[in-house]
Amino acid sequence: MNGASLSLLALDGLPEIEPGMALAPVIAAALKRHDWAPSADDIVFVCQKIVSKSENRFLDLANVEVSEEARKLAVRCEKDPRLVEIILRESTEVIRCAPRVLIVRHRLGLVMANAGVDQSNIPNSDSHVLLLPADPDASAAALREALFQNLGASPAVVITDTFGRPWRLGVCGTAIGSSGIATLLDRRGAADRFGRKLLVTQVAVADGLAAAATLLMGEAAEGRPVVIARGLQRAWGGKAARAADVIRPLIEDLFR
Amino acid sequence: MNGASLSLLALDGLPEIEPGMALAPVIAAALKRHDWAPSADDIVFVCQKIVSKSENRFLDLANVEVSEEARKLAVRCEKDPRLVEIILRESTEVIRCAPRVLIVRHRLGLVMANAGVDQSNIPNSDSHVLLLPADPDASAAALREALFQNLGASPAVVITDTFGRPWRLGVCGTAIGSSGIATLLDRRGAADRFGRKLLVTQVAVADGLAAAATLLMGEAAEGRPVVIARGLQRAWGGKAARAADVIRPLIEDLFR
Repeated sequence: MNGASLSLLALDGLPEIEPGMALAPVIAAALKRHDWAPSADDIVFVCQKIVSKSENRFLDLANVEVSEEARKLAVRCEKDPRLVEIILRESTEVIRCAPRVLIVRHRLGLVMANAGVDQSNIPNSDSHVLLLPADPDASAAALREALFQNLGASPAVVITDTFGRPWRLGVCGTAIGSSGIATLLDRRGAADRFGRKLLVTQVAVADGLAAAATLLMGEAAEGRPVVIARGLQRAWGGKAARAADVIRPLIEDLFR
Repeated sequence: MNGASLSLLALDGLPEIEPGMALAPVIAAALKRHDWAPSADDIVFVCQKIVSKSENRFLDLANVEVSEEARKLAVRCEKDPRLVEIILRESTEVIRCAPRVLIVRHRLGLVMANAGVDQSNIPNSDSHVLLLPADPDASAAALREALFQNLGASPAVVITDTFGRPWRLGVCGTAIGSSGIATLLDRRGAADRFGRKLLVTQVAVADGLAAAATLLMGEAAEGRPVVIARGLQRAWGGKAARAADVIRPLIEDLFR
């Protein structure tokens, strides 16, 4: 018997990504070193951090003018006022503020800690921070196109980040950009094994895969920012969609 | 180059699980059919539903006496008052109530829709519902012990369920019971690639794996309620812990 299967491989040996460096040739070379012949059914997971580095989303803290609002909020959340200023500029709404916690709605719609403004795994983190890609779905689409140029095959691309959760400890990987994969699988009308219509109508496919892929990436010095996955995608067969489509509409948000 | 890898396989051909049926022999037989020789480094993911069925957690709606509180709440959330009564009995707190939405804190601590009270993929769902296992961590430990008796090897066991998320569409797999795996990986003090101490201190390992495993299980008639995974576990090497330890302490909950 075969069952349904899924294989994930984190690529070793990627160089530090510098601003302006193209990701596709680097990923293509790593796939070759791992003897992985990519196909259109594969999915390439890329950590947000190297996309942001490649797109030069660095910001120098020294150039940040701190507003009165950021100064007050920084006291409440016990964070660097310059960092809080950048977080506010990246956000449309503060969702929760507590000592060492600042959860906002990023202007992309993502509800997340610190608007994704990051100081880990970047050079000069005392003076610099790294922002999310300006448009992660567009970044994913561009990378997918560039991978096709480099590989002659067109795997789907998912850009991942790790998110905290309100009622559970620990961070979990999430899809923030996507191209070529059904981010949500719609099961509306499907019947269960006893013929009853399913009430659960949507499955967060890209997030579920991203959660496993980011575990292989690691968070510390061992960081392997690219993971390739094979299996299941063709079987699911949903319509490709943006990661942005997974964001719950504001009108349905019961937790503002 | 090898990279870090992870393989998941959903087992085909499991029978419908009846109350009182032992899961370990069924899983052992399925592993054998798939030519998978289990090891102590493997992880067996088991859908909550078959654990509950095996433990006969069925409840007959006809025997439910509806309280005044449940009757009022049922109007607000547009659900069957008998179902709402059961949900309230399973819960310690109503977190959010809206038309067709009832989010509670289950007495296990899990914040979830409908207290996990389920009507899909069960026989006689017009008259019966299925509750969560009474103690999923204990169920996982017992199943791990029984698997050892049946297999001569002791893979870790994770009991999964699918959860909605407040700010994102679609359900995602989550670990609600666990034995023999580090549910949270503590990275406190680990250094990033530039020597900076990590701020993200905990990674939700069991949840991240469960998210991918449940995708292979499926939600509809194709249901494959057992997935086995190999890879990475030994590399992570954290201390085994209960799934209950992943639940954020009440005092840290900013979203009640």
